[in-house]
Amino acid sequence: MSDHLHVAEPGKQFRLEHHAPEATPGLSEDEGEALLPELRLRLDELQELLYADRRSAVLVVLQGMDAAGKDGTIRSVFREVGPLGCMVANFGVPTPEEAAHDFLWRYHLQAPARGRIAIFNRSYYESVLVERVHGLVPKSVWKGRYGAINRFEALLAAEGTVVVKFFLHVSKEEQRQRLQERVDNPKKRWKFREGDLDERKLWDDYGAAYEDMVNECSTETAPWHVVPADHKWYRDVVVARALIRRLEALDLRYPEAAPGIVGTIVI
Amino acid sequence: MSDHLHVAEPGKQFRLEHHAPEATPGLSEDEGEALLPELRLRLDELQELLYADRRSAVLVVLQGMDAAGKDGTIRSVFREVGPLGCMVANFGVPTPEEAAHDFLWRYHLQAPARGRIAIFNRSYYESVLVERVHGLVPKSVWKGRYGAINRFEALLAAEGTVVVKFFLHVSKEEQRQRLQERVDNPKKRWKFREGDLDERKLWDDYGAAYEDMVNECSTETAPWHVVPADHKWYRDVVVARALIRRLEALDLRYPEAAPGIVGTIVI
Repeated sequence: MSDHLHVAEPGKQFRLEHHAPEATPGLSEDEGEALLPELRLRLDELQELLYADRRSAVLVVLQGMDAAGKDGTIRSVFREVGPLGCMVANFGVPTPEEAAHDFLWRYHLQAPARGRIAIFNRSYYESVLVERVHGLVPKSVWKGRYGAINRFEALLAAEGTVVVKFFLHVSKEEQRQRLQERVDNPKKRWKFREGDLDERKLWDDYGAAYEDMVNECSTETAPWHVVPADHKWYRDVVVARALIRRLEALDLRYPEAAPGIVGTIVI
Repeated sequence: MSDHLHVAEPGKQFRLEHHAPEATPGLSEDEGEALLPELRLRLDELQELLYADRRSAVLVVLQGMDAAGKDGTIRSVFREVGPLGCMVANFGVPTPEEAAHDFLWRYHLQAPARGRIAIFNRSYYESVLVERVHGLVPKSVWKGRYGAINRFEALLAAEGTVVVKFFLHVSKEEQRQRLQERVDNPKKRWKFREGDLDERKLWDDYGAAYEDMVNECSTETAPWHVVPADHKWYRDVVVARALIRRLEALDLRYPEAAPGIVGTIVI
């Protein structure tokens, strides 16, 4: 993780407890805040290039506990990109139609077309997180899903979609403060669900599930970034940098003009 | 149009030639540019309130000639709202599946859920614009579509969706300059299609079609705003103000907390 992108190295044993949610290695808050504007602008440039180039797509997967900052990350990192440049897909409790299909079906429907960025605000990984923790499916089923997910992501990658996955890792104390803020602030209270407290009681079970998710599904083509997320500014720097790195590696180009276009005078 | 929202009054004869694309009544460029940041922030507040309130949806319809500034409007007006707060739907040439359905089907699929904003970057109005101008359907068919569209919008409105429609009205000279810029600028050339010039030759036919569209479909529930769009800053002010006006009329509220939530101490 020496490049500060916090990649969970594929094949190497990942232990959540070795990763501090409050870490901000190599950066002060002032430095981080100063970096963000240019990172956002660069991401916007790359998005336009991605769209013009039309050979690749980008799927951003965001996972994390309640109040880990998924919404805030989208707001901040994609501030310059805007709604024209990317689509956010939210996934709630499956509808009967969705539940009648395989667990990847509804996610595949929302996969980005070439030229586009889709952000999955929670994703198919919930099938090995909430469904596992609450025992909604037997162990034999969720165990098999890691492989299915890896094969799904390999398919996307082989067909031109860059899959970039961020696990926003917050501490239990930071979550407590953020949930309390939702209770105390009338403008934020609507975000608070009593169920959040029940989920919080299962903190350790979720920790184990996230740990397995990273161990099983951090692959060469689609590695997990385990993002220290107690400090919002650091979280945003890591996510933006990781996306920029992956986009720059694509060698995106503005297409050549069709023959005859250059020099055309519009009358 | 005394409130500068450029509403085409329902039932009143609309003539395109009476509306100057370069008009900026009552505002200087400096004043307009100074207004925009606060308008964008207000729109962001209202979007969050819309989402929390969860009783209404907003459908923004954007129409205009090539290079009229549809993309630029989205970028500018929804800059603070961001991708988390609204979804842009683009509609290309219909797929065989889409073409096998009624002309409103694919648009209905993308209609916003309550709490959401959807921006239609071109819309079902293309069925009485490009399809009419190119004779893709007989006159008897496109003539009948105005009524179908009005009934569709009435359905959406009755079920809680605010439909806000903007026709971005640019002059032929302004379009010429913008298309020429696309030819001349290597970073914009990918946006230029040779077909743009063929469409430009049909300028007057499109004018007649836009005029009929406004006359037939500017209704009390879903009036057309005919936005002078030669000046981008003025266009953005009009669109932002009109959206804010409609959202403020909804009397949106943050929901009351569920009983027992207030004062909960998160442990």
